[in-house]
Amino acid sequence: MLDQLQDVLSDIKQVDNSLCSKIQAHLDALTKPQGSLGRLEEIVMKFAVATGSDRPVLTKKKVFCFAADHGVAEEGVSAFAAEVTPQMVYNMLSGGAAINVLARHAGADLDVVDIGVNHVFPDHPGLKQKKVRRGSANMADEPAMSVEETLQAVLCGIALAREAHAEGYHLLATGEMGIANTTPATALFAVLLDLPVESITGRGTGIDDSVLEHKISIIKQAIETNKGSLATPLDVLASLGGFEIAGICGLVLGAASVGMPVVVDGFISSAGAVVAMKLSCRVSDYLFFSHLSGEQGHRSVMNKMGAKPILDLDLRLGEGTGAVLAMQVIEGAVKIYNEMATFSSARVSEKHLN
Amino acid sequence: MLDQLQDVLSDIKQVDNSLCSKIQAHLDALTKPQGSLGRLEEIVMKFAVATGSDRPVLTKKKVFCFAADHGVAEEGVSAFAAEVTPQMVYNMLSGGAAINVLARHAGADLDVVDIGVNHVFPDHPGLKQKKVRRGSANMADEPAMSVEETLQAVLCGIALAREAHAEGYHLLATGEMGIANTTPATALFAVLLDLPVESITGRGTGIDDSVLEHKISIIKQAIETNKGSLATPLDVLASLGGFEIAGICGLVLGAASVGMPVVVDGFISSAGAVVAMKLSCRVSDYLFFSHLSGEQGHRSVMNKMGAKPILDLDLRLGEGTGAVLAMQVIEGAVKIYNEMATFSSARVSEKHLN
Repeated sequence: MLDQLQDVLSDIKQVDNSLCSKIQAHLDALTKPQGSLGRLEEIVMKFAVATGSDRPVLTKKKVFCFAADHGVAEEGVSAFAAEVTPQMVYNMLSGGAAINVLARHAGADLDVVDIGVNHVFPDHPGLKQKKVRRGSANMADEPAMSVEETLQAVLCGIALAREAHAEGYHLLATGEMGIANTTPATALFAVLLDLPVESITGRGTGIDDSVLEHKISIIKQAIETNKGSLATPLDVLASLGGFEIAGICGLVLGAASVGMPVVVDGFISSAGAVVAMKLSCRVSDYLFFSHLSGEQGHRSVMNKMGAKPILDLDLRLGEGTGAVLAMQVIEGAVKIYNEMATFSSARVSEKHLN
Repeated sequence: MLDQLQDVLSDIKQVDNSLCSKIQAHLDALTKPQGSLGRLEEIVMKFAVATGSDRPVLTKKKVFCFAADHGVAEEGVSAFAAEVTPQMVYNMLSGGAAINVLARHAGADLDVVDIGVNHVFPDHPGLKQKKVRRGSANMADEPAMSVEETLQAVLCGIALAREAHAEGYHLLATGEMGIANTTPATALFAVLLDLPVESITGRGTGIDDSVLEHKISIIKQAIETNKGSLATPLDVLASLGGFEIAGICGLVLGAASVGMPVVVDGFISSAGAVVAMKLSCRVSDYLFFSHLSGEQGHRSVMNKMGAKPILDLDLRLGEGTGAVLAMQVIEGAVKIYNEMATFSSARVSEKHLN
């Protein structure tokens, strides 16, 4: 399986920056003052370069919501019980979760992926059955996943991205559901980005001060427990991650390997993206960070990653909610590029020299 | 005409904050951690309270793009020539401007309003012919508009908002087109918000350092020239404003008077909103500020107004582009409220006590 991953990593191409001047020339020919659409112009530039074309196409969009359970939930680090993970998966399958509402609103398709929930689901057209195991182990005591399991989850994400590309999707988004998953995400940031645990540990779904203290100590314990198996990004992901985070890492890598941009949701999804960025220095050219999460620590993480999130709406729900909202902005940017008139076609006088 | 305006101002009702607890209870019953949708929750709360209902409806949206010319353009304060105002109106009527693209993207209807362009347009289904005069006077030498003309433009905006409400629209947005109009907008902010001209004067469509210096001196000269006629907000608007800014002020007041929320675009639209807020202390409960403009000074203006813009995308185009993007976020927020399942309907376990 490691060979398969290596093949995917070597498929991720350096983007062709020679396209930039042609794309910029078109942006500057549109009937607006140069640069006056700010981030929208940056976004369509990145999108077009990632897809390797100065004629970007964006109509089909899909968000993958990876669901998994976490052994560390037994430490009492979350405000919700682990039983909520499968309950929320059922809620998503019946269309009642926030991601259903916002994906419909954004015109994005949604696939829910059971990659590691501690529950057996019946078949459902909206559910991809990709369970690696019924939840990770308690990372405070042992590695959350074996390296083999981790690879399996990463390869699952890769395969989903590649299938979506083959089905004609132009843009993917990441999402997740997994009670307690801010705990592994924080551990991954601490180790991979060398950030202090205290400063980036937040309240997740809403814990109080004493549980927050406990959560910090559990994360530190997990890092200490696993200190012997943190040599590579994949080892770190296995020891301190979770199945949905591994799936997101794979989705990002798989999309990049076929030249398809991906929108990263919030705190948890960023952890999957960080692992992907550590595995391939080229992957960031394919990534949009959708929003600055309301979860404590995300700002430090974004700064450390050099990421400029598109939105800042104090969201801290996950599921892909911020990512699909950002998809609307990205789609607007691509439409600006494709649909606006130029100064010459509209017979509008260009800026005079000062 | 002043009587008509007074009637509209007295029609603007204090919002009924007793609705808040019912709205909050529904938000907290939805299948998400309490408050985890951050600004989306604040937005739907504000929208619902403004409409006076805990069952908010948002399907029909319209943006009004008010176009006008400015006498002060003859001072050479813009990077574009005044002839571009009518050229851009034609571009909007044929669907090629940025606002056309983004309004279509957001599912918002668009009306272009000639409220003071120095050009006579043929009839067109997308154009409202509401010309008060063929452009304002040069405010550096004399008042930009008479008080009568100003009232006419404000009442035009009010009538358009009320017509739209009668036609079933649920949310309006402001937009504008008018070469040189950052100059009057800046003068209005300086006087109405007591902000120093130097710190809030920006480069508009892209002027260089020497033109920026000149623009600052022209704004100061205009304020000095008109210092004897700045007693009321309406006087300030007449002396230092413009027809599109007066129309936007009216649109905001008219919408508020029928309990309909309005999304304010960027720098210029904020000037119209400031005048409206000075005329009625209740109007802010009906306003959404769409985005923090890339135009120098908008941040100070937003801070002074106590406004929290929804987006921050470094846009500085106007036309209503930021407003329609924000409309998508507002619509998403309303859908969250109306379409998500509750913990009890979805049989999801609620948060346990810490």
